[in-house]
Amino acid sequence: MTRGAAVAAAGVPARSALARNLFAPRRIALVGATDRVGRAAARPLRFLHEHGYRGTVYPVNARRDQVGGHRAWPSLRALPEVPDHAFLMVPPEATVAAVRECAELGVPLATVLSGGFGEAGETGRELERELLDCARAGGVRLLGPNSLGLADLRSGLRLTGNAAFAEADLPTGGTVVASQSGSMIGALLSRGKARGIGFASLVSVGSELDLGIGEILDSVVDDPEVTGFALFLETIRHPGALSAFACRAAGLGKPVIAYKLGRSAEAAELAVSHTGALAGEDDVADAFLREHGIARVSTLDGLIESGPLAAATAFPDTRRAPRVAVVTTTGGGAAMVVDQLALAGVEAGTPSVETFGRLAAAGVEVAEGRIVDLTLAGTRPEVMSPALEVLSTAPEFDMVVAVIGSSARFDPELAVHPVVEAAGHGRIAVFVVPEAPEALRLLTDSGVPAFRSPESCADVVAAVLRRRAPGPVRPGPRADAATAGAVSLSEARSYDLLDTVGFPRAPFLEHDVVRPAVPPPFGFPVVVKVDDASLEHKSDVGGVVLGVAGPDELAAAIERVRTAVPQRAPGHTVSSVLVQPMARGLGEVLVGYRVDPHVGPIVMVAAGGRLAELLGDRAVRLAPVTPEVAREMLGEVRSLEALRGFRGDERGDLAALADAVVSLSQLAARPEVAEAEVNPVLVQAEGEGVVAVDALVRVYDDRIR
Amino acid sequence: MTRGAAVAAAGVPARSALARNLFAPRRIALVGATDRVGRAAARPLRFLHEHGYRGTVYPVNARRDQVGGHRAWPSLRALPEVPDHAFLMVPPEATVAAVRECAELGVPLATVLSGGFGEAGETGRELERELLDCARAGGVRLLGPNSLGLADLRSGLRLTGNAAFAEADLPTGGTVVASQSGSMIGALLSRGKARGIGFASLVSVGSELDLGIGEILDSVVDDPEVTGFALFLETIRHPGALSAFACRAAGLGKPVIAYKLGRSAEAAELAVSHTGALAGEDDVADAFLREHGIARVSTLDGLIESGPLAAATAFPDTRRAPRVAVVTTTGGGAAMVVDQLALAGVEAGTPSVETFGRLAAAGVEVAEGRIVDLTLAGTRPEVMSPALEVLSTAPEFDMVVAVIGSSARFDPELAVHPVVEAAGHGRIAVFVVPEAPEALRLLTDSGVPAFRSPESCADVVAAVLRRRAPGPVRPGPRADAATAGAVSLSEARSYDLLDTVGFPRAPFLEHDVVRPAVPPPFGFPVVVKVDDASLEHKSDVGGVVLGVAGPDELAAAIERVRTAVPQRAPGHTVSSVLVQPMARGLGEVLVGYRVDPHVGPIVMVAAGGRLAELLGDRAVRLAPVTPEVAREMLGEVRSLEALRGFRGDERGDLAALADAVVSLSQLAARPEVAEAEVNPVLVQAEGEGVVAVDALVRVYDDRIR
Repeated sequence: MTRGAAVAAAGVPARSALARNLFAPRRIALVGATDRVGRAAARPLRFLHEHGYRGTVYPVNARRDQVGGHRAWPSLRALPEVPDHAFLMVPPEATVAAVRECAELGVPLATVLSGGFGEAGETGRELERELLDCARAGGVRLLGPNSLGLADLRSGLRLTGNAAFAEADLPTGGTVVASQSGSMIGALLSRGKARGIGFASLVSVGSELDLGIGEILDSVVDDPEVTGFALFLETIRHPGALSAFACRAAGLGKPVIAYKLGRSAEAAELAVSHTGALAGEDDVADAFLREHGIARVSTLDGLIESGPLAAATAFPDTRRAPRVAVVTTTGGGAAMVVDQLALAGVEAGTPSVETFGRLAAAGVEVAEGRIVDLTLAGTRPEVMSPALEVLSTAPEFDMVVAVIGSSARFDPELAVHPVVEAAGHGRIAVFVVPEAPEALRLLTDSGVPAFRSPESCADVVAAVLRRRAPGPVRPGPRADAATAGAVSLSEARSYDLLDTVGFPRAPFLEHDVVRPAVPPPFGFPVVVKVDDASLEHKSDVGGVVLGVAGPDELAAAIERVRTAVPQRAPGHTVSSVLVQPMARGLGEVLVGYRVDPHVGPIVMVAAGGRLAELLGDRAVRLAPVTPEVAREMLGEVRSLEALRGFRGDERGDLAALADAVVSLSQLAARPEVAEAEVNPVLVQAEGEGVVAVDALVRVYDDRIR
Repeated sequence: MTRGAAVAAAGVPARSALARNLFAPRRIALVGATDRVGRAAARPLRFLHEHGYRGTVYPVNARRDQVGGHRAWPSLRALPEVPDHAFLMVPPEATVAAVRECAELGVPLATVLSGGFGEAGETGRELERELLDCARAGGVRLLGPNSLGLADLRSGLRLTGNAAFAEADLPTGGTVVASQSGSMIGALLSRGKARGIGFASLVSVGSELDLGIGEILDSVVDDPEVTGFALFLETIRHPGALSAFACRAAGLGKPVIAYKLGRSAEAAELAVSHTGALAGEDDVADAFLREHGIARVSTLDGLIESGPLAAATAFPDTRRAPRVAVVTTTGGGAAMVVDQLALAGVEAGTPSVETFGRLAAAGVEVAEGRIVDLTLAGTRPEVMSPALEVLSTAPEFDMVVAVIGSSARFDPELAVHPVVEAAGHGRIAVFVVPEAPEALRLLTDSGVPAFRSPESCADVVAAVLRRRAPGPVRPGPRADAATAGAVSLSEARSYDLLDTVGFPRAPFLEHDVVRPAVPPPFGFPVVVKVDDASLEHKSDVGGVVLGVAGPDELAAAIERVRTAVPQRAPGHTVSSVLVQPMARGLGEVLVGYRVDPHVGPIVMVAAGGRLAELLGDRAVRLAPVTPEVAREMLGEVRSLEALRGFRGDERGDLAALADAVVSLSQLAARPEVAEAEVNPVLVQAEGEGVVAVDALVRVYDDRIR
């Protein structure tokens, strides 16, 4: 039994052992350590030394006796003690060999600097498999590959090849950073430093072959000095662990903020070349983040500036759209924020009559309007203070955005004082209009959320207010979800599955083609369809006959289908057809379920028809969903507005549609189901329900590889 | 004759006289000057003094002998000489009186600080009319109302109440700023200063009651020290003058950048309360800006950082979508830019085979892909330099974005050197990923476009590449376009007008209801429609009968319409109906023309149908348009994708639709036409044209007030 396995068997709590080996190792091996200036592999030794790391460092270099003034060892095996964290800074094949050695020696954790694995063609993927197999067999946890390492700014731990950590005087804070892009860590550090914003620890997670962000951060989520988390993402990996972490962090009131690349197809492509794996659809990832209470920002500054606002704001009331109050001394500055907020889906709302009354009673004279414009008077604390007091306790608002003008530059202490005082209510964000680093610093030092651009201000406010309190932990998809084989069920069997979750569908009759035509119990007119799961586009091959009006026509239609399909789709013979009543609706939608390899079970609603397909008009959530979430989804599909009685049009039964979405989402409890696409679902008039008139279900087939 | 009128009569070139009175007055009157600290009215006197203004300053204050250590005069009339610029810092009524005095004395220019005019109800609007009438009658030009004044940083002119100008050491530059928000000027000054970006002069234009941005900037466009213009806008005013200025600036190669509020409905509303007038639709304003070669940015930082890139980039080739090369040392930083560019409609494109060949030949080894990732090697000038050289001369790209990582912070001179060298080609923009003020400063001082966030970088690149070289000056709408009365023509007369511009329409027969039904020359089936310009929704009141198949049905349909309409629309009698052939199309669109009060004649294409109306799927341009612009418009209407043969669907005749749009846009040459809405226009199969099946034209009626 390897030592790693023995430790595990002894029942030492895995999370705390992992946290210790990651962030507080006592014996570090630097495999491939070098003196060569400018090389990533030269930095960890120097950094650890310069920052007073208190544990033992073992440079391992087969070709050197000394590295950086320290004794070097020829191999891991030669070390006098077993390290608890090995940083492997050698090429891919040597890395695999080193991990094998770690397994034999019982080294519990290895960080892999090298790339050249999964993104490097078949050879690389083969090495990657070997790497993972060795590690797993030997109880070695892996950080990376492609990891620049990690650092804990509160201690001397600078176990990293990232040149950004050469900088002195990096401020500390309560935020732990996990980044899928190692180079972005430097940007966060330097931009944070300029704003007086520090971090607790920062981890370059690389490709997350073994350890994922969820597991890494979960290991420190209980640390009382850790107050929040910031993620830089290209894609979602290890969703089950990420879910567990996010739920735990939310329960502890520790906000998680994420910046995720890939809102455009072009950027999503880049992730493929980076890691060798598809990044996944962005709105699917967005649903995952949002439903786990993770605030997704879209600006770089926003990622850095967001901590205090996220920490100070409870998960919003989902029953109404978010509304913020905007109070200002400068109209132009406030208008920029209002514009950006609106574009992000957050309304800057007019205060209520009561609130205007309270403002007046507090001696604050303002014209009634969408923003509370204090004009120059607002530069006086005796005006701004009561205004903030009133607005931050007004029930119609989720948040107050205070916009401060030139007084922030010319008299920063006076300008920020009222905001700092009022911010005890926790629902205030500040946008500073001029260049005013001192005001920003005063606000930041006082823990008040402060933003240097209208764009990052609106971005973070919107991201924080879009969050949903997480529900139960979502276990994620089966590990082979991306590659597992699946088979399609026939339309009839697909309907049977829909029946098991209560998804409304049109009645049907399975009709053997060699038997005489039987009048269907539901009468005429009917549609006749070939029922063949392997036929993609039935109507293109003569497999569909509409408007069959009577028994003779039924017989003729069945015969027509039976003869036409094999002619136009060679290799397909027709043994059975489906007979269904002709159905009509006010509109049609697609409701779909599938197990996404990145985030697990999801459910989706998309407007039907060619136009909506072109426009990408859809909503997606993790499955299963509640009725409330289903209604929210329908509100996001803009084409469905047409069914809400616009200009006297008839209203569609959107309540029934929401119920149907909830039903389909219950397939998340059916691990054998890979996918269920119901298209079209006809939406009938209010009170008359919805009905599926086609369905395609795919189930996993473990015989297929 | 007033003195002002005499000067005008003497033929002194108006533009240069205006420029002089605005930016280089020799005798300034400060009406309402005060000592009271903190008051806007106290600042100009102090500023002019502190900055060494060399002309004469006359404080005018009826109640004081001295102001700020200077002799004060009781009135304008009492002054020993006639000022060339009066800054009026008194309440509204006193302002009107002062302007009257200016007219009598021949003061050529007055700046109005006060608000309380057009945005202040009927009383305010009355005062505003008086103000303008007095000024016009007396040859006094007005800046404002609601103007904080102006400053020329190159001289001692600080004729402004804006506290931001108290700051010392404001850098100068070649950009002239015109802002509709006085308070934003301080933000531009301070944020510019922090980046080493200065300005030539800055004007707070207020409500532009008389002098508009176009006329003000046109007066200095020839100044050789002026190299570009930056606008902060809520709305477009005086479009004719703005057009003339923009065309002249483009001709001189002096870029114009604009940040415009109001992309959201909420922010557009704010403009109403600010000025008392509607802001106008944002996409209409956007069309105006774009077609005048004005780069519209969407970020505050972008407005400040954009000058060098706009100046260095020619108007793009409109025949292809913009493509940029992205070269980087840090993958994560580049991915952010790619994402933001793509969201702004600019593709970060993969270099061509030839370009990759040239890179290799220059010793630059990169993996093939969408971004040119030099990795750490790119921090060496001998790699970055040739990479930039090759990419900035590659014909497939309009621009190169160089993304610089942590080397920008740790070795700024080394990091920026290759970029500064290559930037002679003028097509390079730089995004600096870490916090690196020194690198930004080095780049800025060398005239290289540099951006501190991925968002502002992409914003400005996209804004610059979206511009179109201006065509001829567009004179703008008639001055009363917002209020002039118009009458609707009948459908038949609307068709007659369409005929005059060659817009294809269905044939029709006007049929008097009291005469016997005449079989139409175009045969059956037909549609029968009441022809009554005052009936908005014909089909709602029984005024439309479809599918009339023969002569007897025709008679019946005419009778039905004749009797139904007066019952369901009381007060409307039917004397005439229109008979047209039933027409079909693959899709339908709305094509519209109108004289927008903010920008003048515009033409628009919107997808037909309820859904597209909900989705706001439309394109708008200034009219008239060229065939190329019309095709561009159709490319922006996403619903029209459905007619491009998607998945084997039949293709619609989009060429004919583009021609029709061009035709309708020719109405810009018909000043009597206020509006022409053609809806629906049926788009038929490729080669079969388009056909209007309804039309509503409104013509100005000068009898209506």
